[in-house]
Amino acid sequence: MSLAPPTCLRFRPLGIDTSAEYVVYMHAGCHICRAEGFAAQARLAVSANQRTLIATLNIVRGDLIGIDEASLSISAQRALGIRAGTILHFSHMPVLASASHVRAKVFGQTLDRAALQAIVDDAVSGRLSDLHLAAFVTACAGERLDLDETTSLTEAMVAVGERLSWDRHPVVDKHCVGGLPGNRTTPIVVAIVTACGLLMPKTSSRAITSPAGTADTMEVLAPVDLDITAIRRVVNQTGGCIVWGGGMQLSPADDVLIRIERPLDLDSDGQLVASILSKKLAAGSERVLIDLPVGPTAKVRDAITAQRLSSRLITVGARLGLQVQVRLTDGRQPVGRGIGPGLEARDLLQVLRCDAQAPQDLAERALDLAGQVLELGDAATPGTGLSLARHTLTSGRAWQQFQAICDAQGGLRAVPQAPLRHLVLASQAGKVSTIDNRVLARIAKLAGAPQSKAAGVDLLVKLAEPVEQQQPLYAIHAEAPGELQYALCYALAHPNVIQLEN
Amino acid sequence: MSLAPPTCLRFRPLGIDTSAEYVVYMHAGCHICRAEGFAAQARLAVSANQRTLIATLNIVRGDLIGIDEASLSISAQRALGIRAGTILHFSHMPVLASASHVRAKVFGQTLDRAALQAIVDDAVSGRLSDLHLAAFVTACAGERLDLDETTSLTEAMVAVGERLSWDRHPVVDKHCVGGLPGNRTTPIVVAIVTACGLLMPKTSSRAITSPAGTADTMEVLAPVDLDITAIRRVVNQTGGCIVWGGGMQLSPADDVLIRIERPLDLDSDGQLVASILSKKLAAGSERVLIDLPVGPTAKVRDAITAQRLSSRLITVGARLGLQVQVRLTDGRQPVGRGIGPGLEARDLLQVLRCDAQAPQDLAERALDLAGQVLELGDAATPGTGLSLARHTLTSGRAWQQFQAICDAQGGLRAVPQAPLRHLVLASQAGKVSTIDNRVLARIAKLAGAPQSKAAGVDLLVKLAEPVEQQQPLYAIHAEAPGELQYALCYALAHPNVIQLEN
Repeated sequence: MSLAPPTCLRFRPLGIDTSAEYVVYMHAGCHICRAEGFAAQARLAVSANQRTLIATLNIVRGDLIGIDEASLSISAQRALGIRAGTILHFSHMPVLASASHVRAKVFGQTLDRAALQAIVDDAVSGRLSDLHLAAFVTACAGERLDLDETTSLTEAMVAVGERLSWDRHPVVDKHCVGGLPGNRTTPIVVAIVTACGLLMPKTSSRAITSPAGTADTMEVLAPVDLDITAIRRVVNQTGGCIVWGGGMQLSPADDVLIRIERPLDLDSDGQLVASILSKKLAAGSERVLIDLPVGPTAKVRDAITAQRLSSRLITVGARLGLQVQVRLTDGRQPVGRGIGPGLEARDLLQVLRCDAQAPQDLAERALDLAGQVLELGDAATPGTGLSLARHTLTSGRAWQQFQAICDAQGGLRAVPQAPLRHLVLASQAGKVSTIDNRVLARIAKLAGAPQSKAAGVDLLVKLAEPVEQQQPLYAIHAEAPGELQYALCYALAHPNVIQLEN
Repeated sequence: MSLAPPTCLRFRPLGIDTSAEYVVYMHAGCHICRAEGFAAQARLAVSANQRTLIATLNIVRGDLIGIDEASLSISAQRALGIRAGTILHFSHMPVLASASHVRAKVFGQTLDRAALQAIVDDAVSGRLSDLHLAAFVTACAGERLDLDETTSLTEAMVAVGERLSWDRHPVVDKHCVGGLPGNRTTPIVVAIVTACGLLMPKTSSRAITSPAGTADTMEVLAPVDLDITAIRRVVNQTGGCIVWGGGMQLSPADDVLIRIERPLDLDSDGQLVASILSKKLAAGSERVLIDLPVGPTAKVRDAITAQRLSSRLITVGARLGLQVQVRLTDGRQPVGRGIGPGLEARDLLQVLRCDAQAPQDLAERALDLAGQVLELGDAATPGTGLSLARHTLTSGRAWQQFQAICDAQGGLRAVPQAPLRHLVLASQAGKVSTIDNRVLARIAKLAGAPQSKAAGVDLLVKLAEPVEQQQPLYAIHAEAPGELQYALCYALAHPNVIQLEN
């Protein structure tokens, strides 16, 4: 028994950009809408060029398109690879097994590998709606994926993407779980570790819920959107790279899940592990150091949670052939001074150049992590990694190596400066007792980070520092007046972001 | 500190219907997009006519609109009450406390009345995105709302809507928890109970995840989309009504949550209780009988769940001044024969007219419930309700009364018949051992119910009935060939929907 013959309309581009969402536009009077009883927001299958996708219907009332025409959002037009006049075929959306799996998970059932693969496949192809993806992300939030599910999800995510392999071994890597503004150690670690001869092809992500991801910050300094051929050239030339992983389809499922998690500001243990490990596996990494900052306003708030996540990362990694080592770090305050791509880039350049005013906390963290990676990759014997890392930095070899990597990626760029700045002053004297990472991150985001590269927060005090009344606590940097004022509104509503005690 | 002065664009209608979602269209080159760095899918505040709403941004690339223009989806245009040329003001979306509350709930925190009110307010005003609503619905799924939260959510939902009051007392009501296809007792119960002099102004909902809600079925027989003035007239005239509650803004929050729950096929104990009780409280009901079908493929699957839900309905009702009585009923198979608005309307007319071929199970259930309501409303002494109900039906008084109500609502209509039918036959002989309510409901929905009024399933056998090989088990009714074939595909893939044993 086959489906009814699909019905057809001519494609007319309208040029509407809906980002990743697939939208189809049909005239209210068209025969398909009328015959099939399609209403606005219905989801239906659109085919052309031997490709099919599922799109959300918007109904056009008026003369924007004819009754024998249909339009598609730019994303859907690209996915089908069509031009004006192409004949589009429409049919009812298939019943999705993945939607039932999502529902089962919402109600607390455990999903097996096949069910998770079905969800991941349909997420990547756009068959599952954003509502279903939001339900899935929510149903997995916190600790609602067990170890088997996490392993299966990781495998499923690796299976839908590209997978790199490298000629030299071991391939080392480093990843930060995040949640700590300004913690931009990666470019420094890559420079040190590859200067010492290890292979470290680093693929990073853009910000999920933070004011900057490593890829956002690195993009200030050099191109990061390289294809696989270009990355291989950079890595062959220098032993390392610091590029954006999203352009390579290494874990397209992760990109889809992140698109949903970002506006919801949600993370889950299981998805975090699957997200990290799927990207590491896809990137061909073999030994990975994970920086896991712990603090009351970091992503991981206490030692118990950190231990649980740590053990999950190590166990799932081991099951999938990845040697994982976790470093718990201090997450009580931002690292360095800058929060936002441009300001963080400034900080890490100061460290690499061994400037006198370089933020020492950022330098020490990067050295600690680099030392661990050197030992993990057998480039230093146990206990000697840190001193090798320090020597590599102070000798200028790390800075040379960083410039070589930037050149290979397309050339070192100047750090942009924000045209608009506003200093937030201490209303009283005292000693800094707490700094709220989340509120500072929110202010940086409202100021425009990471889209506005120069925007963000420049933190001018650290925990335990004495502060005079009217002394600047932090500066808000912005590129647009609306954003500056908006960030400032929020900052003024949250005077306790930096607390002082007498 | 005020926000930056809002920036303005001229409104140009495009006539795009996105259903309830608010969408704003701006040209990629317009000064607001460029100055504020807005990207597609960003959410922003749009104001005109002293009204403000939050809309999702779609970017227009091309000449559909000018760079000094913006367009809005029809829903947003209506909500702002504007016409071509009106000046629209744009600003960044405010930080929503309700989004933080949703996140807290996702991570298992308990929400208080104020937090739930914030969520409900922002859901109704469209400030919370559909993704956030999906996360909220998912976070409440199953039993994840406690008794206090359920009470608070119910109160919050009543607070954002209209609330009716009536001159006569007690005001009785009846509600079915649903999940049982064809269980269309309400119109019969209203006819019997109001014929006996009780006041029963019944507001019903449309289908959530089922092939028909009472409002969908009743709409086949009479207009149900009445305003409050019209309803008062009908109730004053007849003592009852059977109308759609959604048109009266009795529980607009429920309508929003249902719009999200429907595509996700999700329900939760707490939201179910809040949905039912908020509508009953808003409708001015004082004593409510709740029909709770229990069966392996009904919404409530076992006695333990039924008891839990029942006790929650009674307790939350009592806290809010509503006397609730729950009747657990047999949910192992559909009630009557028809599944879908038109087919169910046919069944209930047969019962009211005391036709010889009327489905006896539907008649007996309606009589049982009507008897209970008569006793609950003090129109019958304990133990005498059923016989009073039966007498009212068999004497023809219920049918007279039903016609009076339909006339008052706008006139009794003829039941439409589907042009396309397909009989599904038994592949072997045997006795009917199980009937899957969910699969039958799905087939009826794929056939077009409830949008296509005449579409659905006509069930031709009941549990324990003997069946010959090739005997028809059920008929699929459809209005469009695509829908018939689509339903049939699914039916053929699920031959066990009706199981036979030797």
